[in-house]
Amino acid sequence: MEIGALLKPDKICVIGASEKSGFGGDTCRNVIEYMREGSYYFVNPGRDEVFGKPCYRTVEEVPGSFDLAVICTPQGTVEELLKSSRAKGAGAAVVFASGYKEIGSAQGRENQERLTRLCKELDMALMGPNCAGFVNYTDDVYPFAFLSESRDRKGTVGVVSQSGQICLSLMDSPGMKFSYVISSGNSAVVRMEDYLEFLVEDESTKVVAMYLEGVQNVPQFLDCLKRAAMKRKPVVILKAGRSEKGGRLAASHTGSLSGADAVFDAVFRKYGVIRVDDVEELMAVSMMFSILPGLPKRPGIASMNLSGGETGVCADVGQTWGIEYPDFQAETLERLREQLPSYASPANPLDMTATLSYDVQAYAGALRTVMSDPNVGLVAIGYTLLERIADPAICYMTEAIELVAAEPGAKPMVMIPFLENTRNEEYARRLECAGVPVLPPTVYAFKILRYLEEFAAYRPEERCLDMTAPAPREKNEKTALSEHESKEFLCGHGIETPRERVARSEAEALEAAGEYGYPVVLKIDSSDIMHKSDAGCVKVGIQDEGQLRQAYGEILENAKAYDPQAEIGGVLVQEMLKAGTEVIIGVNNDPQFGPMVMCGLGGVFVEIFKDVSMAMAPVSEAEALKMLRSLKGYKLFAGYRGGKKLDEQAVADLIVRVARMAADEKDRLAELDINPVFVYEKGVALADALVLKYD
Amino acid sequence: MEIGALLKPDKICVIGASEKSGFGGDTCRNVIEYMREGSYYFVNPGRDEVFGKPCYRTVEEVPGSFDLAVICTPQGTVEELLKSSRAKGAGAAVVFASGYKEIGSAQGRENQERLTRLCKELDMALMGPNCAGFVNYTDDVYPFAFLSESRDRKGTVGVVSQSGQICLSLMDSPGMKFSYVISSGNSAVVRMEDYLEFLVEDESTKVVAMYLEGVQNVPQFLDCLKRAAMKRKPVVILKAGRSEKGGRLAASHTGSLSGADAVFDAVFRKYGVIRVDDVEELMAVSMMFSILPGLPKRPGIASMNLSGGETGVCADVGQTWGIEYPDFQAETLERLREQLPSYASPANPLDMTATLSYDVQAYAGALRTVMSDPNVGLVAIGYTLLERIADPAICYMTEAIELVAAEPGAKPMVMIPFLENTRNEEYARRLECAGVPVLPPTVYAFKILRYLEEFAAYRPEERCLDMTAPAPREKNEKTALSEHESKEFLCGHGIETPRERVARSEAEALEAAGEYGYPVVLKIDSSDIMHKSDAGCVKVGIQDEGQLRQAYGEILENAKAYDPQAEIGGVLVQEMLKAGTEVIIGVNNDPQFGPMVMCGLGGVFVEIFKDVSMAMAPVSEAEALKMLRSLKGYKLFAGYRGGKKLDEQAVADLIVRVARMAADEKDRLAELDINPVFVYEKGVALADALVLKYD
Repeated sequence: MEIGALLKPDKICVIGASEKSGFGGDTCRNVIEYMREGSYYFVNPGRDEVFGKPCYRTVEEVPGSFDLAVICTPQGTVEELLKSSRAKGAGAAVVFASGYKEIGSAQGRENQERLTRLCKELDMALMGPNCAGFVNYTDDVYPFAFLSESRDRKGTVGVVSQSGQICLSLMDSPGMKFSYVISSGNSAVVRMEDYLEFLVEDESTKVVAMYLEGVQNVPQFLDCLKRAAMKRKPVVILKAGRSEKGGRLAASHTGSLSGADAVFDAVFRKYGVIRVDDVEELMAVSMMFSILPGLPKRPGIASMNLSGGETGVCADVGQTWGIEYPDFQAETLERLREQLPSYASPANPLDMTATLSYDVQAYAGALRTVMSDPNVGLVAIGYTLLERIADPAICYMTEAIELVAAEPGAKPMVMIPFLENTRNEEYARRLECAGVPVLPPTVYAFKILRYLEEFAAYRPEERCLDMTAPAPREKNEKTALSEHESKEFLCGHGIETPRERVARSEAEALEAAGEYGYPVVLKIDSSDIMHKSDAGCVKVGIQDEGQLRQAYGEILENAKAYDPQAEIGGVLVQEMLKAGTEVIIGVNNDPQFGPMVMCGLGGVFVEIFKDVSMAMAPVSEAEALKMLRSLKGYKLFAGYRGGKKLDEQAVADLIVRVARMAADEKDRLAELDINPVFVYEKGVALADALVLKYD
Repeated sequence: MEIGALLKPDKICVIGASEKSGFGGDTCRNVIEYMREGSYYFVNPGRDEVFGKPCYRTVEEVPGSFDLAVICTPQGTVEELLKSSRAKGAGAAVVFASGYKEIGSAQGRENQERLTRLCKELDMALMGPNCAGFVNYTDDVYPFAFLSESRDRKGTVGVVSQSGQICLSLMDSPGMKFSYVISSGNSAVVRMEDYLEFLVEDESTKVVAMYLEGVQNVPQFLDCLKRAAMKRKPVVILKAGRSEKGGRLAASHTGSLSGADAVFDAVFRKYGVIRVDDVEELMAVSMMFSILPGLPKRPGIASMNLSGGETGVCADVGQTWGIEYPDFQAETLERLREQLPSYASPANPLDMTATLSYDVQAYAGALRTVMSDPNVGLVAIGYTLLERIADPAICYMTEAIELVAAEPGAKPMVMIPFLENTRNEEYARRLECAGVPVLPPTVYAFKILRYLEEFAAYRPEERCLDMTAPAPREKNEKTALSEHESKEFLCGHGIETPRERVARSEAEALEAAGEYGYPVVLKIDSSDIMHKSDAGCVKVGIQDEGQLRQAYGEILENAKAYDPQAEIGGVLVQEMLKAGTEVIIGVNNDPQFGPMVMCGLGGVFVEIFKDVSMAMAPVSEAEALKMLRSLKGYKLFAGYRGGKKLDEQAVADLIVRVARMAADEKDRLAELDINPVFVYEKGVALADALVLKYD
């Protein structure tokens, strides 16, 4: 199967060509308007011409071979047409028809399975079914089933979407320019991961924009993300299913398997994928990356505006999204004082006053000054670029921006309007040519600048990116290990646990305690008794031999009373740990993406605030530290209530080891819960652990 | 001073009339374009005509009297012109000139003070200085110094803004329609509160939209908000200064006093003010309220869309803003199954499939079904209303919406596009006429629907709205009371505290302990020793007379060692409280708005998560309960880790009493910190309290 035949065909054949509105008619209109004469054939059993172009009665009658069959006819006709197209040399097809998996019936599923099998047999790359087709703007290929507004659209954003409607919306958005727009439909043959791979490798695509409902081929997906990360090519993904209702919808819409949403967050974080929240962000973020000549070389945004009110909005909304407005250096302030009117008060964000917007040189001068401040990585120009120009300020400002943008060492700039429905096309285009994207209004804009800062700060070399997903699991049954077995399992993977031993008699218990030194802890050793404390089978702070003897007896008695059938391995004797700050480290094995390692602070942090951080295993030390530092409760590590600083390095090391172990055991380890880990000023100690393994 | 002469003048006189662009020229252009012939005079010493209209050399030469002087000339000329205008009967003036307080110099401040005094002497209502003027769309009065795009703008949103630029942006926004737009400038005479009062009372104004940097007259401000709340007239405020940098900017911009931002949140919450985050929200929220025929009668939003992808976005983004999508009732689902294509799966949010958008009756039918579900209060129609129409769906949908909107019992509807730059004017207008506002894209839209739900749920009768701000304070020096004095102060205001007594001898201490019963707590009683525990002056869990004697001696000894100069009142003997869940209740006395009462859960909740809730005192029981329920840690009240439910009613009662006391003592109480309050399954107990009073 060759995806090139699908997306970069020399010749296409539209089957079901028509002049009526609908798949056939709209596709023909698109093909005639945008494609080179001679690069397409039309087929329709009832017509000799379509819009004045020759049309053949059957595929067989087509006078030459072609690469791509564009099948506009209903579901029942598709299979025969694929075969006859294959006979004409077609290695690929686009199928618009519905009536497959998306209808939810057994018949639909069967139709789709048959279609998939046939394409495998014929070795054909098929887009769809139930799709809207695609446009290759780079080579002018337009097998797309809906009309869209005609503007110059050739650009560098490569879109692939599991929703045809979202493709259409993006195609009708005034400023968007594409390399490819692909509506994948049901992805019965060529899958989302295949398109992603194509766009990541495609040289005409500078940014990949994706609407994703679920992933089918995890290893390929991760490999694509890794390649994009290594190339620093931005991948912007609108992933459905953040909410429970959204997740259910995504799963039912094209029949994709939709994984746990937080897992996707972790995967995307690892590979520097920019996850956006809606279609507007997908559009605006992709457009921004496609227009900006380069990434900011350092964090720090300078905000320049024409009024105090607007400057205040930038200060306030920027802070909401964690935008850092570095103070200007003394030299910058001094030069601004010379360049701005006397009543302006230079600061960042900057109110330049409206006066400056009527003088190209003065505006350019102030812009240069702000840009040259070493603390500034990007300049955000606040201005409501109106659709209809009532105020000439924009003429002068645009000229000044063009001047400065063309100078060597110019830093990235964006324009932030305060109201939507603005973006006068002429000026937006001029700014685009100068490398300055016009963002949506402030609440979106500063969120988008936050994405940009995170992408610019991402370093693939800091992350473990070599992933191997677990083998598909037949069964999901799990068995719990006892505490002692769990700790031995961890020990076997180089994770240090406190001293402990299973005593099979009181004498053995006394011997162990003598060796560790009092106080000690006694617990029942039985994988049948999960809630040891509730069963009265945990005794802490045992101070001497007398107490040990008593505790030993009681634990066995209580265990018997609690569950007479429980299999008892003995009594666990542990050294008594000094209490420390409680941290929880856990592993969950995602059915698609494999082990996810989690950490959080104990007690209310996890239970009330759900303050946990997750990463895909394995993780680097840098990733483990980022996990800890992203916790709201991280402040505890800096010394809480006058306490000492905690050893975050030791916790990070432990996370790295746990994640490494989880990755190594990805086909056996179902769950791990180390709760709590005591963290000290120096070092950590695992107080309790529970391992669940797949049977 | 009569604000009517300013905002509703019969005749105006433009002084400094001109044909050149600038204040004089642009104002004349506006006046001629929008005002009735004969409702204005022009004055300029150098001209007999302006744009073909008669122009007088001096104010004295004007042949009749006028109500409003519109002074377009520089600062130095203003005072004389005010006097001559007053002589012509003018009760009001607009002054565009700058050179006053905003320039930050002593000269500027002096100019402004002189202007304020003069207006008082002349009894004139002055707008500005350093303003852009205003437009009264209701009566066609247009003394505004900047040209804006000309569209039909007569509507029901009353805008008042401390930023002229923000007025201009709103005036150029395609869908906005106004009763008034007022640029207040420096508010040297007529203040923000006066304009607010005017707009709250004005019958042509359905919604008040405000850009606010600070409040000058707190009692008037609160009275206006109360009147708006009682009338249920929406007041939408963009308040500068959420961030520290924004706060500094707002303070310097027009020289307003900018209070603590969280205090404004509390004030706005009490009066049901809708606080927005940027200009886009100010525009969109005001527009929404002005277009909607009424408020939703119940919470619960139904989302209807044409594709699965867009439906998923609505599910996900809606959840982010806490939008409740109630499940449809069985009857609704059944009818939708009949009305939608067989492959659609009815649910809320609803993917109707695109098929329906091409059939007016089918679309209207499904819309009626969704609307008639008793769980639904509002219908949000997801559709990207494009600027240029490429797809005819909107024609059919609009017709269907118009049909259903006109039917009795129709519920409120909004349209949510997925991309900005859309809002085709013709269709937006038709939807507006049908009472259906088109919101900005989803991230804004669902936030705005959240504001709408909160406003619809607001009940003024649940709140204490009768406020009296504290008297202006000369000094801010405070004195701390001792723990015992603090508790006595609370007792004096009907707030119950545990039994305790200051013992001046060991014998007195023994007697008190005997009375309360052991165990007891001993603490030093001295307002000079603030940190009693650090000084070793707190002994808890004293079990018997022997321990008491020892503790008594040690405390006095430690106190002397800690601070030999400290004045010692004696030793406080307290009954030992049972430990409970720790809550903190406090009061801060805001210099503008008076006492603010705060509550939060103790420990990490307050210290790490800053999980506190604030309200302006006094508060009703309903307000106190809302405060508690808004805490993230509120879950603790429901019983944490299998614990018992806590007595939230008792905490709410305590908050109400504390707030009442704080309001009564607003001129004396500087701060109060009750930390901790122990909360039990039944009741509460104040373990410690600290009162700071103004000297």
